[in-house]
Amino acid sequence: MLLEETLQKIRPLDRLIEPEAQRRLDSLTKPQGSLGKLEDLARCISVIQAKVPPRLGRKLLFVFAADHGITEERVSAYPKTVTAQMTYNFLRGGAAITVLARHCGVDIEVVDIGVDYEFPSPRGLRDCKVRPGTNNFTRGPAMRREETVQSIETGIRLVEEVASENLFLLGAGDMGIGNTSSAAAVLCALTGALPRDVVGRGTGIDDATWGRKVASIEKGLDINRPDPKDPLDVIAKVGGLEIGAMIGVILGAAVLRIPMVLDGFISGAAALSARRLCPSVTDVLFASHLSAEKSHVLMLEDLKLAPLLDLEMRLGEGTGACLAMGLIEAAVRILREMATFESAGVKQRIL
Amino acid sequence: MLLEETLQKIRPLDRLIEPEAQRRLDSLTKPQGSLGKLEDLARCISVIQAKVPPRLGRKLLFVFAADHGITEERVSAYPKTVTAQMTYNFLRGGAAITVLARHCGVDIEVVDIGVDYEFPSPRGLRDCKVRPGTNNFTRGPAMRREETVQSIETGIRLVEEVASENLFLLGAGDMGIGNTSSAAAVLCALTGALPRDVVGRGTGIDDATWGRKVASIEKGLDINRPDPKDPLDVIAKVGGLEIGAMIGVILGAAVLRIPMVLDGFISGAAALSARRLCPSVTDVLFASHLSAEKSHVLMLEDLKLAPLLDLEMRLGEGTGACLAMGLIEAAVRILREMATFESAGVKQRIL
Repeated sequence: MLLEETLQKIRPLDRLIEPEAQRRLDSLTKPQGSLGKLEDLARCISVIQAKVPPRLGRKLLFVFAADHGITEERVSAYPKTVTAQMTYNFLRGGAAITVLARHCGVDIEVVDIGVDYEFPSPRGLRDCKVRPGTNNFTRGPAMRREETVQSIETGIRLVEEVASENLFLLGAGDMGIGNTSSAAAVLCALTGALPRDVVGRGTGIDDATWGRKVASIEKGLDINRPDPKDPLDVIAKVGGLEIGAMIGVILGAAVLRIPMVLDGFISGAAALSARRLCPSVTDVLFASHLSAEKSHVLMLEDLKLAPLLDLEMRLGEGTGACLAMGLIEAAVRILREMATFESAGVKQRIL
Repeated sequence: MLLEETLQKIRPLDRLIEPEAQRRLDSLTKPQGSLGKLEDLARCISVIQAKVPPRLGRKLLFVFAADHGITEERVSAYPKTVTAQMTYNFLRGGAAITVLARHCGVDIEVVDIGVDYEFPSPRGLRDCKVRPGTNNFTRGPAMRREETVQSIETGIRLVEEVASENLFLLGAGDMGIGNTSSAAAVLCALTGALPRDVVGRGTGIDDATWGRKVASIEKGLDINRPDPKDPLDVIAKVGGLEIGAMIGVILGAAVLRIPMVLDGFISGAAALSARRLCPSVTDVLFASHLSAEKSHVLMLEDLKLAPLLDLEMRLGEGTGACLAMGLIEAAVRILREMATFESAGVKQRIL
């Protein structure tokens, strides 16, 4: 119900305010266009907020943690227990995303959407567990369709909950051992790409593990036959709970017109799915970076989004999104804080 | 004297501490290498400081303002008076660099190294004027060799002055109508490239202005015959005072082992010159971004430096350096603040 209602409510952005944003950019004390992509960002945020200059506010990133049954096939370099251990690490502030979030002024909400571990109610963790991890998709569907819907609706509700709190930017990151296998399977299911062409090195796997990963995804697609026209079917059969929650965040952001910053390969799989549920979601999406994970580039091409950063990162957790949020805020500050030629008494161009 | 002494004191970095930096990076709770270029940055800063983890501290950017006689040839879209007007804009906080510096936590020092305007001692401006702008290099040398040395030594002294103040990163930006003409002329003089191949659009010039710009640089090189083996001769004949000061900052940073973040095309010309005075200066240099100014890529190839950002910016002022300083700080924070597998109780890789 919530998912259907949300999809109904998403409208393409009107771009009526874009010329006003451009005029303001061109009135600022710099050669026109000389801030390149920062100017594009400032214009996009103006359009999404329908406001020139756009307002600033809280930058918030959800980190969704979930487990994956596919780890039984030994497709990751790390044991499945690392998902829960890293979730604790997020709460204690020792993970890469928590370090970068502090540096960039980004608030973090850590969400258990499906970790295969009973947390004894640790402080700071949001318990939204749909189920304790997915099933091994080489032996049947990863989860039931209703569970996929539940994970998506959890994401939508989280956005609705935080949207009123002076929110400026949303982001989403992931933690889930095995989840590059799920994301690659989703990419293959939705686009028809072949596993051997898209499967990357994830956390840094060797050739033998890579071979098992390709074979597992091939088997998963073969026995589950996910319907490429039905993203919910794809996520239920070969996806993951954090991918579902991220789809929900994207849909919620699109309804409420909040700029949403993608991270890397896992949030890319969510964006591909969300775009197929509703093409105009990409109006509010920003590609933070190009992941070193091999086929992230295919995802960005599908989404028609250009990445802001290319730092050869492949960690996930929201690390790329976090760094990009700092750049997007910089762009908005340009539009808000720079003097105009007139106000600063600077001569305009003469040639 | 100071210049000669400084060049004598610069030593190549020893990299003895690099394995320790790498071991620490690999002990942190992330797959090895998964933070890509952030890990490279953290390692480089460790090596420059000879310290693991490196210390943090003040980020400081000098903005050097100077005028250029070549503007008489109508090579810029903006009138020469804009140099002084923008200098005031820096002091009042309305320029792009001041907005970005506030956002990134970077301190700015605005330095008059050669503006063709007598500032009635405005607060916050450092008066280091060597002369009120250069001469038109199509009619003879831009300045005397001693003036070039004076501009370089000013840069060295500024670094010596600020180095003790808990300094973490140095940067340098520029303001000078006409200075892409000087920087392009320096590039041609040092590398043998042809003006028509390297001259870009600067502040956004039309075809006729571009033609005058190419012709002016050709004429300047032809009548002055700068010696490609003598960077001081090149700067004196076709360079600029801000380029000289930036060379000084680079040399000072190299002696004192302070990481120095280049900006775009103008600081690129300074780095090319500095490298020819002393090749090991590049040990402390970081390329912040790839400028949209056409031949900046040639400069980075000459310096063997890879840019951190590619945002199609072409403004100067230190805007690219400022954004990159935020990324470099993020990298150091990773090394300082992340938990290790051991301290966080996270299992190591098993495959």
